Amino acid sequence: MLPWDHELAGELHHETIESELLRGNPLGDPHVRPLWVYTPPGYESDDRRYPAIYVIQGYTGHIGMWANRTPFRQPFIETADAVFARGEAPGCILVYVDAWTAYGGSQFVDSAGTGAYHSYLCNEVVPWVDAHFRTIAAPASRGISGKSSGGFGAMITPMLRPDLFGALATHAGDALYEYSYLNEFAKTVRALRDYDHDILKWWADFRGRTPFTKEHDQLLVLTLGCAAAFSPDPDGTPRLPVDPRSGELIPELWERWLAWDPIRMIDRYADALRSQRAIWIDAGTRDEWFLDLGAEAFRQGLARIGVPDERVHFELFPAAHGGIDYRYPQATAWLAHRLER
Amino acid sequence: MLPWDHELAGELHHETIESELLRGNPLGDPHVRPLWVYTPPGYESDDRRYPAIYVIQGYTGHIGMWANRTPFRQPFIETADAVFARGEAPGCILVYVDAWTAYGGSQFVDSAGTGAYHSYLCNEVVPWVDAHFRTIAAPASRGISGKSSGGFGAMITPMLRPDLFGALATHAGDALYEYSYLNEFAKTVRALRDYDHDILKWWADFRGRTPFTKEHDQLLVLTLGCAAAFSPDPDGTPRLPVDPRSGELIPELWERWLAWDPIRMIDRYADALRSQRAIWIDAGTRDEWFLDLGAEAFRQGLARIGVPDERVHFELFPAAHGGIDYRYPQATAWLAHRLER
Amino acid sequence: MLPWDHELAGELHHETIESELLRGNPLGDPHVRPLWVYTPPGYESDDRRYPAIYVIQGYTGHIGMWANRTPFRQPFIETADAVFARGEAPGCILVYVDAWTAYGGSQFVDSAGTGAYHSYLCNEVVPWVDAHFRTIAAPASRGISGKSSGGFGAMITPMLRPDLFGALATHAGDALYEYSYLNEFAKTVRALRDYDHDILKWWADFRGRTPFTKEHDQLLVLTLGCAAAFSPDPDGTPRLPVDPRSGELIPELWERWLAWDPIRMIDRYADALRSQRAIWIDAGTRDEWFLDLGAEAFRQGLARIGVPDERVHFELFPAAHGGIDYRYPQATAWLAHRLER
Amino acid sequence: MLPWDHELAGELHHETIESELLRGNPLGDPHVRPLWVYTPPGYESDDRRYPAIYVIQGYTGHIGMWANRTPFRQPFIETADAVFARGEAPGCILVYVDAWTAYGGSQFVDSAGTGAYHSYLCNEVVPWVDAHFRTIAAPASRGISGKSSGGFGAMITPMLRPDLFGALATHAGDALYEYSYLNEFAKTVRALRDYDHDILKWWADFRGRTPFTKEHDQLLVLTLGCAAAFSPDPDGTPRLPVDPRSGELIPELWERWLAWDPIRMIDRYADALRSQRAIWIDAGTRDEWFLDLGAEAFRQGLARIGVPDERVHFELFPAAHGGIDYRYPQATAWLAHRLER
Repeated sequence: MLPWDHELAGELHHETIESELLRGNPLGDPHVRPLWVYTPPGYESDDRRYPAIYVIQGYTGHIGMWANRTPFRQPFIETADAVFARGEAPGCILVYVDAWTAYGGSQFVDSAGTGAYHSYLCNEVVPWVDAHFRTIAAPASRGISGKSSGGFGAMITPMLRPDLFGALATHAGDALYEYSYLNEFAKTVRALRDYDHDILKWWADFRGRTPFTKEHDQLLVLTLGCAAAFSPDPDGTPRLPVDPRSGELIPELWERWLAWDPIRMIDRYADALRSQRAIWIDAGTRDEWFLDLGAEAFRQGLARIGVPDERVHFELFPAAHGGIDYRYPQATAWLAHRLER
Repeated sequence: MLPWDHELAGELHHETIESELLRGNPLGDPHVRPLWVYTPPGYESDDRRYPAIYVIQGYTGHIGMWANRTPFRQPFIETADAVFARGEAPGCILVYVDAWTAYGGSQFVDSAGTGAYHSYLCNEVVPWVDAHFRTIAAPASRGISGKSSGGFGAMITPMLRPDLFGALATHAGDALYEYSYLNEFAKTVRALRDYDHDILKWWADFRGRTPFTKEHDQLLVLTLGCAAAFSPDPDGTPRLPVDPRSGELIPELWERWLAWDPIRMIDRYADALRSQRAIWIDAGTRDEWFLDLGAEAFRQGLARIGVPDERVHFELFPAAHGGIDYRYPQATAWLAHRLER
Repeated sequence: MLPWDHELAGELHHETIESELLRGNPLGDPHVRPLWVYTPPGYESDDRRYPAIYVIQGYTGHIGMWANRTPFRQPFIETADAVFARGEAPGCILVYVDAWTAYGGSQFVDSAGTGAYHSYLCNEVVPWVDAHFRTIAAPASRGISGKSSGGFGAMITPMLRPDLFGALATHAGDALYEYSYLNEFAKTVRALRDYDHDILKWWADFRGRTPFTKEHDQLLVLTLGCAAAFSPDPDGTPRLPVDPRSGELIPELWERWLAWDPIRMIDRYADALRSQRAIWIDAGTRDEWFLDLGAEAFRQGLARIGVPDERVHFELFPAAHGGIDYRYPQATAWLAHRLER
Repeated sequence: MLPWDHELAGELHHETIESELLRGNPLGDPHVRPLWVYTPPGYESDDRRYPAIYVIQGYTGHIGMWANRTPFRQPFIETADAVFARGEAPGCILVYVDAWTAYGGSQFVDSAGTGAYHSYLCNEVVPWVDAHFRTIAAPASRGISGKSSGGFGAMITPMLRPDLFGALATHAGDALYEYSYLNEFAKTVRALRDYDHDILKWWADFRGRTPFTKEHDQLLVLTLGCAAAFSPDPDGTPRLPVDPRSGELIPELWERWLAWDPIRMIDRYADALRSQRAIWIDAGTRDEWFLDLGAEAFRQGLARIGVPDERVHFELFPAAHGGIDYRYPQATAWLAHRLER
């Protein structure tokens, strides 16, 4: 196998979708979006309908990065294809959705700060895919998977829309916010000492120079983007949920973040979760955002509300947050076996 | 000046105090305690009364460590002495109090898990010192200072006992627990994977071998000791305020910790804080427990309840948590000028 | 500008070259190689000849990675194109050469361990490009640039072949081996404790599982690949230049590495270096392999042998080893102004 | 056992020695030196003669630090005493020698930069101890032990003076300088960018402020002190063995360091090493200066020159460089059994 190139057994369709919901979004991001749809081997020659797995990305990811090649590894597009090509799992359609924003991401929610990315995904992308590809257009045959912020999206989207999604996979998905975000807030407060305690001053600086050349850029763009997603002002301005000098939590804003913590959503969306056929949860044991703890808490919460163990795959594996793309095809195969067809 | 030895201008009295309150403490720690009392130059030759500053230690500290010598530096006993010897501040009595326990510390609170260390300090040590040395036995002439857990003790003791203490200095004192402790909990949960998720199994292991030879010993002894101080069972057994697998907070136990967060105590003890003549707050800008944020939050809280700015010294300086003993004599001098005499 | 896509002002030609020199190489790597050739805006419409800059990659890089997209940044292919499109520098042909091997790289040398990659570059790629594109086929109009191992290649190739290359740019290029490699050897020795002190046992393990899932994979693949390049046995087996238990240097093998240290090559190749029209040297001040020191030593060495200062651009900038691709177009523009046309 | 205090079974004599050799030393350090001599239980009541083990310290150590108390541990003075008190080993006299200098240490060599500390130890301290205590004044009954720089001293002193020392213990002793020092030089070069590339400018700064409040203080004081020990100018000025901008080694100075590398001394002092009755070598597997590799190289070297295995104790244990004082009494007991009595 060549490291720089690989022929797929299935086919990757580079599509474009014009979104009404993203038109005029607050950040001026494109409303004409790329959408990559993978059809498995056999799709072209038969006329069967296939389950679909929607694939979403982590923070700062955009669709173009799925094509990136890293040393000694193949991209997920190819490793997923291999799952089907080798017959390890029955064929699925994979839908690569882009929800990037100028802040680096949308958290797959509808927000005054970034745009209606949740609705875009559910009300525009899903129907478009069902209209253009031979999917089985039912929740039992539709899953969603992702890593990090994408794992978060994969947890919350089926909670909000069990009428659309009946299975999910979360790899190191954002959860248990007291561990994943508070540490970031503390570091943000320190980083902002160089910016008059004002993250928007940092943002102005960041946009005017080569990005990621200052130590705290990665941290601050994530904090800013999540603030835009979770606690924007009505006019869309991102608001940090902490005092920018001391880090003291601002309860009414922090509550808005917590309302999006998958762990804290479990009881509110218990029926939706109980309707899922298959839930894959994994994370690295050294995850820098302690998302292994979030994974464990999600698993415990599912058990508590009565999701049967046999519908859940839970695994902690020795790794940090990065470089875990080799896990994705394992979840894809597992879901492919469990989606109704 | 010799690095290994130094003659004090004042005098250090190595005393012993027999505590009724610590007798029969739950950990079987000694109730006969060392107490070091420093009298400044001139004390022996005059008959004046002097203000007193009580000095307490950080976690894992015991009184014997005040004599430790570190490279290129002098111990605080000597640098404090130098403040008075050089005339930088008027003389004070310094009282070095031991509140060590078998877990490494007591947090200077009364607890079923460790013993009545708060009462020991306030109801036994203070009267004993007043009886045996020429102190000015009034809160306006009595201060308390410490670093880390000692800074915590220096914040809370005057809140609880403004009738005894009228000034304080906190160096990197524990505060704003969502930043100082939650991260530790997350790491604790991970560390306990090797101990069946049971901190008492770790403790049994720790006691049976050379301490601090395993990576997580430092972390776990602090977590355990704080659990003993803040959330013991009625029988004294330390209880972690989190699920030991997921780290999910156990609200009723975590609330007991938060009740001891100096930031959250400010409003409850506003009168006591407003009664203080002098409050020194400092911390390193890179403190590993984010106690610089706690320092800032404490300062903001004091301003909010109306403590006049001129009574507060606030300073963040470039440092981490360790190696900041050179700050102590600066606070000692500052307090010495402000204590009533 | 869309983050996932960009139209070039120039044109990128995806070519393939069949190498006689790489045929039957010891690792069984492909001898039919991809070669990407960029022609600047205007190339299609005029009939002028252009200078060419060869672009080579760091360790573990292969040509496909030039297309990778990273957050908030554009690939070099696009940022270089922008240099020409905006008229910041006169047009050049850019030649993206692949010298990947199964070990992750070739160091751009001829070696019994990997293959004749130096000769491939000089004797096959260069003539092929000159035959198929309108280059100015003279050293004064031919440069070479790269980062890390690619920077190393950009330093040594013109030393060895001044008849071909008359300009170079090295970004954090490997140099001053006592700092860049010895530390790696020490860590390698430790890592090999888990593999019976035998790097080939690690290699067998690495090839049989998901790569880069063990802590030391990155370290060991680099050590192994460099040993294959610099100190292979006559039969091609990589030999570490150290005792695998103690790390003691094996002088005769370490000398073979040092013979490839650009700093130690300066005097041997002084004429070749003095023949260069333009030499760009930069590195990040926090480079993990201390290549900032290597950069400074290279600069000092050039001055010592009489390379005029005005032919040299030297710069240390605040960065570590990673994420410095934004520097490449700066060097490209600088070289483009200095190559003869 | 109380953490702050402990009664010895033996006795610690705080002595003072007036050195002729250190009088007028180049740094103006005291020539009247403290010397602590421990006599084991029984010494006072019998009239036997005892073997002696000289104990020396790591860099920045001075004799007063032996009294330091650290959390949950006892000082070596007490743990060594316990070895004898519990009958684990026959009694020895322990001689705690001070070889501190204003730079933080002397490396136990005679140097124009610091003074004649090797001769002080061998020609003044040893005879003085033999004259004042009931030692068995023969090399077979005299050992030396130390950690870090003290381990270095414990390796080289018996090499230079086998007529005095016949046994040694090195804990993480400095050795294999290409790994222990080169990395430090690279970091030194970087640190000196803030001091016009001049370590003496840093030294002037360091002496004028609170020590160890700047990030690189620890690094630079070690580099400076070793340069004073190993490569001073004839007038005593420390000379770094590297170009202060590039880090390039200055061969004639670096050779002076290497002449003091215990690994490179083995063959020169093979007879002296073969005369040793007992050689304890240990180090932590994660030692920050790679002294575990130095330990292994020392062991291999001893085997190569024919030191019988049964005279050598070699052990790597899981630890970094710090906090390994619990190893010292193990070596003390082992030596005590092997010294002639």
